[in-house]
Amino acid sequence: MRDQVTISLDAMGGDRGAEIVIAGADLALVRHPDLKLVLFGDSTIIAATIKSYPRVEAAALVEHTDVSIAMDTKPSQALRHGRRVSSMWRAIEAVSKGDADAAVSAGNTGALMAMSRFVLKSLKGVERPAIAAIWPTERGESIVLDVGANVGADADQLVDYAVMGEAMARTIFGNPSPTVGLLNVGVEEIKGVEEVRKAGRRLRDEDLPINYFGFVEGNDIGRGTVDVFVTEGFTGNIALKTAEGTAHLIAAYLKAAMSRSWMARIGYLFARGAFNALREKMDPRSMNGGVFLGLNGIVVKSHGGTDAMGFASAIDLAVEMVRNDMNEKIAHGIELYQVQRDNAGAATPMEAVAK
Amino acid sequence: MRDQVTISLDAMGGDRGAEIVIAGADLALVRHPDLKLVLFGDSTIIAATIKSYPRVEAAALVEHTDVSIAMDTKPSQALRHGRRVSSMWRAIEAVSKGDADAAVSAGNTGALMAMSRFVLKSLKGVERPAIAAIWPTERGESIVLDVGANVGADADQLVDYAVMGEAMARTIFGNPSPTVGLLNVGVEEIKGVEEVRKAGRRLRDEDLPINYFGFVEGNDIGRGTVDVFVTEGFTGNIALKTAEGTAHLIAAYLKAAMSRSWMARIGYLFARGAFNALREKMDPRSMNGGVFLGLNGIVVKSHGGTDAMGFASAIDLAVEMVRNDMNEKIAHGIELYQVQRDNAGAATPMEAVAK
Repeated sequence: MRDQVTISLDAMGGDRGAEIVIAGADLALVRHPDLKLVLFGDSTIIAATIKSYPRVEAAALVEHTDVSIAMDTKPSQALRHGRRVSSMWRAIEAVSKGDADAAVSAGNTGALMAMSRFVLKSLKGVERPAIAAIWPTERGESIVLDVGANVGADADQLVDYAVMGEAMARTIFGNPSPTVGLLNVGVEEIKGVEEVRKAGRRLRDEDLPINYFGFVEGNDIGRGTVDVFVTEGFTGNIALKTAEGTAHLIAAYLKAAMSRSWMARIGYLFARGAFNALREKMDPRSMNGGVFLGLNGIVVKSHGGTDAMGFASAIDLAVEMVRNDMNEKIAHGIELYQVQRDNAGAATPMEAVAK
Repeated sequence: MRDQVTISLDAMGGDRGAEIVIAGADLALVRHPDLKLVLFGDSTIIAATIKSYPRVEAAALVEHTDVSIAMDTKPSQALRHGRRVSSMWRAIEAVSKGDADAAVSAGNTGALMAMSRFVLKSLKGVERPAIAAIWPTERGESIVLDVGANVGADADQLVDYAVMGEAMARTIFGNPSPTVGLLNVGVEEIKGVEEVRKAGRRLRDEDLPINYFGFVEGNDIGRGTVDVFVTEGFTGNIALKTAEGTAHLIAAYLKAAMSRSWMARIGYLFARGAFNALREKMDPRSMNGGVFLGLNGIVVKSHGGTDAMGFASAIDLAVEMVRNDMNEKIAHGIELYQVQRDNAGAATPMEAVAK
C-alpha cells in the first residue's frame, strides 16, 4: 500500500476543461489530503481558475502545454497534432516517466486510448487493453469490460479481459476471490459465438486461479450475479449506454408520476429525503470513470460531460488503484495465464502445429 | 384491414402452460370479441381449464396433441421429437395451412424459431428471420431488432432487418415514415464493425423508401431517438436483457428508498396512485411479445414466465399485425430492396465481379 500518490491530470479535457478538472481536484483533495497532482494545460487558463482553490494550488504542479485535444478529434489526428505537445499526451507521459502514478482525463476516449497505447504500451502478454466500468447492482457493484476499447474479441482476448477484470475486482472491492462470468445470449440454439464458448471452455478447464462462474445474460448485470462481467467492446459499449438510457427513462417516468396530482405532490414532499437518497444512488457521477486495463500504467477516463463531483470520483478511482497496486496484480494474473497457455500448447501437439 | 382474425395458440407453452394461455386468451377476447382461436395441446388439460372461461370455450377450437416441448429442450431435439405432433409445431402449422392468421407461443424461443423456420420458411428475399421487441421510450415506443434470433449479421442481413423493422413500425405505430437507426458504438476510433458501416452506407446511398437516420448509440434507445433500432442478435439480446435488469434494479432502489423512514412511508401513502401508474408504465407485461419477422406467417413469442395479462398482450400484438397486413408490408419492402440491390450490382461491374 503506497502512501504518497501523484496523479497527473489533463486539465484541458472534457466539455468544460480546467474549470471542472480543478474543482474536481479540490474535492478529491478533501478526501485524500496527501495527494499530489500535476496539471497539464494552458497555464494562463489554469492560473485563472486555480487561484480560487488554494488546496489545489498547494498540492499541484502546473505544466504548460500549447495544444488541447478537442472532444471530436479523431484518434489519428490527435496522435499527429497532439504528440508530445498536448495536455493529454503529457499527462499520460508523466505516468510512463514515473512523475505520476496514474493519469486522469475527461477528454475524448478514442484519442486517450490511442495515446495511452502509444505512450504506455501494453502489459507483457496482453494483446489489447480494455476499458472497464463499475456498474451498480442489487448486490452492490460489479465490473463490466470491455465497454468500448475494441470492437470484437477472440477467445484469448476474452480470457485476458477476465484476468484483468478479476484483478481489478480484487483491487477495488477487496474481495479475495471475485466471481467472473462471460456475457452470452440465452437462446439454446445459438448459445453465443464460437469465441465466447471457447473462452468459456478455457476459463472452466484450465487451472487458472479464477473463480469462473459460467455464462451470464444481460439481466444478470443489474442483479450482480457475478463480480466481473466479460464481453467484447461493441456489445459492452451498447449494453452500458442502454442501461444509462433506461435509468434516464425511468427517472423521467418517476418525475412525471410525482407531478400528476396534488396527492402525489404532497407525497413527494413527505418522501423528499427518500427521493434525494434515490437520486444519489442513481447518480451516474458517483460511478464516473472508465479504467484502461492492460497498459504499463493506470489511466482513468472521466465522462466528458461530468461536473466537479464526477471528476473527483474518477480521481478517487485512480488513487484507489494505485494504492492497491492494481497493475502489479494484473501483470501477475496475466503471467500465470501465459504459463498455462504455453503449457496447454505443448500438451497438445495438434494445437502447437495449428499455431 | 381484416375483420375476422384467427390466432392459433400453443396451449402447452410457457412456465405454467394451459392455465396462463387460456386465462390470457380470455382477457384478449374482452378486447377483441370477434377473435377466433385454435388451441393446440393436451385436450384433457385444456378441458379442465377452459370450462372456467366460457368466452374462450365459445371462441376456440381445441386440437389435441400428445407432445409438449419443454422449456429447456434444445431446438434440434424439439424438431426431432416434436415434428408434426407437438402443440408448438401444430400451432405454427395452422398458420402455414391457412387455418390461422398468426401463432402465439410462450414456449422456448430456440425451439419456436427453429420450428417456425422449418414450417413457414423465410419470406422471399429474406435470408434470416429476426426477433423484434417493442421498447418503451421517452417518446413512446420503438422497435428493436434482432433481439436474439441469430448471432452476428452481415450488411445485407442488417439492411433486411431495417426493411422488416420499418414495416413493423408502420404497422403497429401507424406512422407512415418511421425513422430507422443502426446501433453502433460512439468511440471515434473504432466506429463499429465493418458490416455495420457497410449497412449504413447502403441505407444512406441506395434509394430505398426508408427514412434512415444514421448511427445511434445504446442510450438513444431509452430516448426513442428513432422508431426502429437495428442491430445483430447477440448485442440486441444483451441490450434488451441489460435494460430489464436495470429497470429491476431501480425498482429495488425505489422500494428501499420508500421504506427507509416514517416520512417516506407517509409520502408513499399519499403518492400511492402515482406509484401505481409508474408500476403500470414499467410493467414488462404490457410490452410482452417478441415478433418473428421475415417468415411466411406471423409468429409471436410470449415471455415464458408471463401471466394472463402478459399473454393477452402477446395475442393483442398478433391480432394487430394480422389486421394491418404486416407481412404484406414486409414482403413489399423486401422486394423493393431486392430490386435496388440487383440494380446496384449491375451498375458497378467491379462489384458484380466481386460477387
